[in-house]
Amino acid sequence: MNIDVERTVSALVGELEKSWNDADGLGFARPFAEDADFVNIRGEHFRTREAIGRGHQGIFDTIYKDSVVHYQLAALRAIAPGVLVAHVRSILKVPGGPLAGEHRSLFTMVLRQDPDALRIAAFHNTLVV
Amino acid sequence: MNIDVERTVSALVGELEKSWNDADGLGFARPFAEDADFVNIRGEHFRTREAIGRGHQGIFDTIYKDSVVHYQLAALRAIAPGVLVAHVRSILKVPGGPLAGEHRSLFTMVLRQDPDALRIAAFHNTLVV
Repeated sequence: MNIDVERTVSALVGELEKSWNDADGLGFARPFAEDADFVNIRGEHFRTREAIGRGHQGIFDTIYKDSVVHYQLAALRAIAPGVLVAHVRSILKVPGGPLAGEHRSLFTMVLRQDPDALRIAAFHNTLVV
Repeated sequence: MNIDVERTVSALVGELEKSWNDADGLGFARPFAEDADFVNIRGEHFRTREAIGRGHQGIFDTIYKDSVVHYQLAALRAIAPGVLVAHVRSILKVPGGPLAGEHRSLFTMVLRQDPDALRIAAFHNTLVV
């Protein structure tokens, strides 16, 4: 993997992490393509950047209020010209409420090089048992 | 979506379903690319067609013995030339053992048009809560 590409993806993952920790739904959605797919740990399927941002703002304000996430890029490879698959490990610490505690998950991201930026085309997350 | 592409993906999903129901790990792995990624409902990450086949044969012979799965292609779109993202809903019926019962899941598949066939480059599954 080209080191510049790896840096770009790491920066994108860092942007997701920062937006989560700032409880910023709009910021969290920014790296997604406008028509992106998102499947969460409950097997719910969202579509479009707008829905992803709105859905995340909802959980940041409620069940994941004041939570802190840490993401680590675990694997990255190109599967076609301009298309990457990344695997990211997540540790989420939730201070209170029904989901209080530490939750580990692993997500797959499909990234596409658009003319102006690398964007997330599809995202799928699963809790690590 | 081109109707021929949709038929090809439906056939591939049907091949996965048949191989599961035949408890055929090698057959289940056949539509995967040699270097494919696979994340299961426990957040475990497998890599390579060979590991995917071996892992599935293991569960077909034990925890999912005599289980019957039904897959339904729920969404399909092209995200780049020769690269598709599919979302598939699964209903798994397990007749006995510690996982007896019905389990619903949703998986994302990233498909790549290789010179000789359409292959699964990445697969990620999550139980539907």
